[in-house]
Amino acid sequence: MSAHMSPEEFRRHGRQVVDWIADYLAEVESHPVRSRAEPGEVRRALPDAAPEHGEPFEAVLADVERIILPGLTHWQHPSFFGYFPANTSGPAILGDLLSAGLGVQGMMWVTSPACTELETVVVDWLAGLLGLPGRFRTDGPGGGVIQDSASSASLIALLAALHRASGGRVAAEGLRGRHTLYVSSQTHSALEKAARIAGLGSANVRVVDVDPGTLAMDPAALRALLARDRAEGAVPAMVCATVGTTATTAVDPVAAIGEVCREHGVWLHVDAAYAGVAAICPELRGLNDGVAEYADSYATNPHKWLLTTFDCGLLWVGDRAPLLGALSVLPEFLRNAASAGGSVVDYRDWQVPLGRRFRALKLWAVLRWYGAEGLRAHIRAGVALAAELADRVAADPEFVLFERPRLGLVCFRPAWPGLPAEDADRATLRLMETLNAGGALFLTHARAGGRVVLRMAIGGTATERRHVEQAWDHVRREHSALKVLMR
Amino acid sequence: MSAHMSPEEFRRHGRQVVDWIADYLAEVESHPVRSRAEPGEVRRALPDAAPEHGEPFEAVLADVERIILPGLTHWQHPSFFGYFPANTSGPAILGDLLSAGLGVQGMMWVTSPACTELETVVVDWLAGLLGLPGRFRTDGPGGGVIQDSASSASLIALLAALHRASGGRVAAEGLRGRHTLYVSSQTHSALEKAARIAGLGSANVRVVDVDPGTLAMDPAALRALLARDRAEGAVPAMVCATVGTTATTAVDPVAAIGEVCREHGVWLHVDAAYAGVAAICPELRGLNDGVAEYADSYATNPHKWLLTTFDCGLLWVGDRAPLLGALSVLPEFLRNAASAGGSVVDYRDWQVPLGRRFRALKLWAVLRWYGAEGLRAHIRAGVALAAELADRVAADPEFVLFERPRLGLVCFRPAWPGLPAEDADRATLRLMETLNAGGALFLTHARAGGRVVLRMAIGGTATERRHVEQAWDHVRREHSALKVLMR
Ligand SMILES: Cc1ncc(COP(=O)(O)O)c(C=O)c1O
Ligand SMILES: Cc1ncc(COP(=O)(O)O)c(C=O)c1O
Repeated sequence: MSAHMSPEEFRRHGRQVVDWIADYLAEVESHPVRSRAEPGEVRRALPDAAPEHGEPFEAVLADVERIILPGLTHWQHPSFFGYFPANTSGPAILGDLLSAGLGVQGMMWVTSPACTELETVVVDWLAGLLGLPGRFRTDGPGGGVIQDSASSASLIALLAALHRASGGRVAAEGLRGRHTLYVSSQTHSALEKAARIAGLGSANVRVVDVDPGTLAMDPAALRALLARDRAEGAVPAMVCATVGTTATTAVDPVAAIGEVCREHGVWLHVDAAYAGVAAICPELRGLNDGVAEYADSYATNPHKWLLTTFDCGLLWVGDRAPLLGALSVLPEFLRNAASAGGSVVDYRDWQVPLGRRFRALKLWAVLRWYGAEGLRAHIRAGVALAAELADRVAADPEFVLFERPRLGLVCFRPAWPGLPAEDADRATLRLMETLNAGGALFLTHARAGGRVVLRMAIGGTATERRHVEQAWDHVRREHSALKVLMR
Repeated sequence: MSAHMSPEEFRRHGRQVVDWIADYLAEVESHPVRSRAEPGEVRRALPDAAPEHGEPFEAVLADVERIILPGLTHWQHPSFFGYFPANTSGPAILGDLLSAGLGVQGMMWVTSPACTELETVVVDWLAGLLGLPGRFRTDGPGGGVIQDSASSASLIALLAALHRASGGRVAAEGLRGRHTLYVSSQTHSALEKAARIAGLGSANVRVVDVDPGTLAMDPAALRALLARDRAEGAVPAMVCATVGTTATTAVDPVAAIGEVCREHGVWLHVDAAYAGVAAICPELRGLNDGVAEYADSYATNPHKWLLTTFDCGLLWVGDRAPLLGALSVLPEFLRNAASAGGSVVDYRDWQVPLGRRFRALKLWAVLRWYGAEGLRAHIRAGVALAAELADRVAADPEFVLFERPRLGLVCFRPAWPGLPAEDADRATLRLMETLNAGGALFLTHARAGGRVVLRMAIGGTATERRHVEQAWDHVRREHSALKVLMR
């Protein structure tokens, strides 16, 4: 057993794994959505040390079934409504399998031209489908790249922005003086993390006010803050506008924010991690108003709502020069004729890691299996289910709908009449815990308008109307039970 | 075709892909190792826009065969000797497939406890197999984590080091003053990239002299440079010692460097990206001399030599507090009881991205299929083949062996008697280009002792003695032909 797995053994075990996954996907509904494992339970079920002698592959599969499965929170369960979906699909899994099987490492064009060029092709295809501007295409001054995540995309955008703002000094000599980053209270924490990583520190993450109703960034407040900071000697590096915030899918006014960025010569990054892919539907393209005119960079994640197995986050820049300036370091052992010739893209210079998986294969497989039309149908199905659920919530006097959803996320809370806000928030969290502990569905919470709201994010690959309806029934039933208990 | 792929369709297409990969692995030798594609060739073979309507999965597979395959440089070809191996194996591919099929996202413990706990288990297993010190284990003050790459591991180590060196000020207020990073001329460029990302800038990457014979960092030179920089007001953040440099697998004297770090209170990171996994063999454990006593962090990549499909890089820290201090940001929507209770690990705080794949599955599958004994056999086979090749090179008066290899990398050059060094280097590069263009093997170059050397890195999963022997025959034959041409 300690020899290499032969191609014939691979064929046999590969079929076992494929069958196992097919069965899992067919029966995923039978599991509690959130794992019931206690801290340490999985770990205790496994030996303290690696085996000395090899074991048959069947032993691994048996332990996946016996030990791993009960320790999973099932993101592909049709009643998983937490966070945002990380939806997957058959073609994505198989595209990813091809990538693992080929085992090529695409750090530079020469280390597998097709790995680089297929990536260029699919990010350009997506730019077209989403209606992104021409400067984001690889045959323009910018280009797109597949990152592992929107967090990394934010960091890369910030590094390019710092490069531009400092005239290249950050890469050469390091940060000097005070560089600032502008976000809102609703911006994802990935931006603060990026600011810390890039050396700006949390203190230079400047939080712009939001409209208290829509939770969208207030461009006038941004203008004022930028002016004040600059008067105090700060050099603004980047503004991050969010299209579809994590808490409530609020959409920052990109055009108005872009106008302010232009006045001050500041880089505008648009984080559309969840919502951006929805722009493949013409009727939702308005989400991106202002992007074509103003954005220096734009990020959206096919690994959230676009059926592409994690990890697959897209980042486009309108100008690749500052990005390459920030990140390109060329040691002797990576020199090669193709790169020196300048006619190829080396994506290693577009990301933190050097090495790269062939991630384009899974996105390509998804785009081809579904076609633009199939992807639109998937997005529309989620949007429609969210609208229906919102109608139900709005019609129920026991509940308060936060806002009519424009996308796949519904935010609401029980009204808890008579309870002071703090007690009501606690009761809402208790309701959530009861629901999640029950195992029939999984949802998460956020704070919106000062209150705790429950978030139901619809858009899982297997989620159908009945799952949303059952979930809503569950919410109402547990809410009634809790009301009785609390009386 | 634009509907979701059903579990039954997945079963069918999954078998097709498994068969395709089994065939690919069985026949990989029949392809030229380096792709013969011209820049733009793959791109031009593909449509300009995504398809409007979905296509059968067979169409994707046919295009993989027709368009993608000729565009690949085959890293799994047994005659791929370039860079370092990115070797893969059946169990790793299948573990990775399980991860894609389950589609869970392990950003926090609660989002799939088994994803976190299996990772803890396998990094602890590896720490045991490699003889790493107890403080690197998760039940000690530190712990290990799977990163995408050694580049990211270097960045994370640097951020933790900066956090410690600045007493937390970098994360809070940003970089102030001058922080320095110490490397040698042989250190991987990932460290300079990390320094740029973290805001130190290339100028604060301080290059310590190496021993001209061994190319190992000179601890006395490090001591002098550190003292001088500190006298000038710099705050040293980190020293990076490399165990197995990229150019020639030189091993920096970790213990002596660690002594200097201790004197100056500087964080010691050990980058053993390629070589570290060899320490599973007791007779090679000496590579890590000094690590147990001195290292604050240690990185090695199972995705290079340990049969685990890219991406899988391991990072251990002796103290997790500065790492969490540098990277942990907790927004409301990620709050949960398990994390608040403090009894679980949330690996999102150990890396740049938020989201995480279930990478531990592939490493676990490898460890179980091979067992420690099988992994040792694989490492030993590579080391033995390298030693045999080195004997042949050393015995051939037409060639100069750079150094007796201790691991799987052999560095050598033709002697080119009578040619001035610069012309000889050009001739060596020309020989390399001829060899790589031929397609029978692939190797890369480096600069060692001021001269261009060819690197043959042995350790591919499918590489056997005959491939190394054939490669050496090719090298000699093409070298003779080139000598005739150049006369
Ligand atoms: C708006 C927004 N930005 C960034 C992220 C971070 O995503 P990732 O896990 O890809 O880093 C998220 C995740 O939900 C998000 O909603
Ligand atoms: C010593 C060393 N460090 C770091 C790296 C970078 O590895 P990765 O691609 O995992 O970032 C390499 C790659 O060859 C290496 O040899």
